[in-house]
Amino acid sequence: MLREAARRIQPLARRTPVFTSAGFDERAGVRAIFKCENLQRGGAFKIRGAANLILSMSPEQRERGVVAFSSGNHAQATAIAARHVKAAATIVMPADAPRSKLEATRAYGARVVTYDRLRESREAIAEGILKETGATLVPPFDHPLIIAGQGTAALELLEDVPGLDALIAPVSGGGLLSGCAIAARSVNPSIRIFGAEPEGANDTYLSMLAGDRIEVQPNTIADGLRVPKPGRITFPILLRLAERILLVSDGELRETVKFLLLRLKLLVEPSGAAAAAAVLFGKLPRDVRRVGVVLSGGNIDFEELARY
Amino acid sequence: MLREAARRIQPLARRTPVFTSAGFDERAGVRAIFKCENLQRGGAFKIRGAANLILSMSPEQRERGVVAFSSGNHAQATAIAARHVKAAATIVMPADAPRSKLEATRAYGARVVTYDRLRESREAIAEGILKETGATLVPPFDHPLIIAGQGTAALELLEDVPGLDALIAPVSGGGLLSGCAIAARSVNPSIRIFGAEPEGANDTYLSMLAGDRIEVQPNTIADGLRVPKPGRITFPILLRLAERILLVSDGELRETVKFLLLRLKLLVEPSGAAAAAAVLFGKLPRDVRRVGVVLSGGNIDFEELARY
Repeated sequence: MLREAARRIQPLARRTPVFTSAGFDERAGVRAIFKCENLQRGGAFKIRGAANLILSMSPEQRERGVVAFSSGNHAQATAIAARHVKAAATIVMPADAPRSKLEATRAYGARVVTYDRLRESREAIAEGILKETGATLVPPFDHPLIIAGQGTAALELLEDVPGLDALIAPVSGGGLLSGCAIAARSVNPSIRIFGAEPEGANDTYLSMLAGDRIEVQPNTIADGLRVPKPGRITFPILLRLAERILLVSDGELRETVKFLLLRLKLLVEPSGAAAAAAVLFGKLPRDVRRVGVVLSGGNIDFEELARY
Repeated sequence: MLREAARRIQPLARRTPVFTSAGFDERAGVRAIFKCENLQRGGAFKIRGAANLILSMSPEQRERGVVAFSSGNHAQATAIAARHVKAAATIVMPADAPRSKLEATRAYGARVVTYDRLRESREAIAEGILKETGATLVPPFDHPLIIAGQGTAALELLEDVPGLDALIAPVSGGGLLSGCAIAARSVNPSIRIFGAEPEGANDTYLSMLAGDRIEVQPNTIADGLRVPKPGRITFPILLRLAERILLVSDGELRETVKFLLLRLKLLVEPSGAAAAAAVLFGKLPRDVRRVGVVLSGGNIDFEELARY
């Protein structure tokens, strides 16, 4: 399924480059190999999953269009993949989503329906559109084709860089990490898998401890990681394959965004920098020597960045 | 000499990646292929020339150390290359150089001597050190080995990307552009060569028109391009090989830095973005179809960036 996904998404997803930084390694005390999904089409890994699902749809399904609800990067990815197959895309987004993400989604040709995050249910709105149009829902993480699509990032990384003893990626709903965990283990059965979450959105961290899905009220600058609880499909995969979830503070995320920008010259958004932050601030076990780090996205408003 | 330089600098200079951006091309109306020297070791192309010269020095010369005067990127490059051959490096820098550049130069192990740009002559200071120590001067641009070293950037680009009809690079003293012009023509004798200069440091632009070296008083945000007149060795090369120097305003430089950051997710300093700015703002002749664009450096203070 993963190899199939890798082939399927080729017309839409970029094989992103891999970077290293002696300065980062020195400060982190571990050799980090970055998979630059901030340089991915649409500015984040999300195109991998959305493309895998949308390119699997029948011509009849494409005719009826697609719907997604997302605070950002998944929205853009769905819009890009839908345009590629000439399917209409409706994206349900919170009215207070970063301006850059609202604008970019519209620029890719999607219809954007905004809602009030505190008063309205995005699920209810999406449900209404789905009933009305017969469109296909493109969920942000809880779908086997989405998970397989995201996993192609790790597949590429392990093809390009042999000899990693660990892999770490940010965790939101768990689509990226569960897909990458499956992919990485399929290439290297002994590779260690870690996730990184903000302290203020530690639902997967708590759920892993409890062995069951726990819901939290997210409060973090990492807008892409503000998911209240792990996915129904993704969580059991993480429970089985991930060794631990490492927590990072918003301050550590900010510092890491600045470090990646000034030293690696790469723009990474706070959500996309969570795994790098966990590594930079020494949260990996000491016996990890060479870790693959997914920089998962780079979409941030200039105004927000300037405030750091 | 260029092939030799390419081989010589291998232990020190990175083969930098090449990027493209559909969004950039759409706005610029031309296909741009970026050579990412902002991702070079030390954050700029300068390591190529400094390494070529310093790795050509005899053991006796290395023993006596090296001296450079530079407002920034050349300083760091000289420090890195000197450390590699265990030669002492003294760098003469203006006291008001960007803090990031002063700090980085010291971090690479060089002794930094600062001077007052308005009252003191850096040449006189460097001269004093040279007399005292018998060290070798590593000039920022006006030396055949420096020019050949910088040219390796174009050599790599043309090896990686065939079919370019033009090449453009920022112009300061002209070391990068003259080296790249020689290198590019050696691979493709019909490639068109352009330079980019800030309106406020248009010495090479004026000199090309006059057919002789003209001095100006630089005033631009592009601190790396504040050279008052073209080089004695570089200028005749540019006069012969470059079609035209394109001028960009400081506002265009700022816009381009933001565009490259937010769309390509790459941090490029104003000096390093001059060629991209000329392309983005439509200053190339209309019949150019595929242009190689050197992003020559990425060292900028966060505080300065935030002001944009």
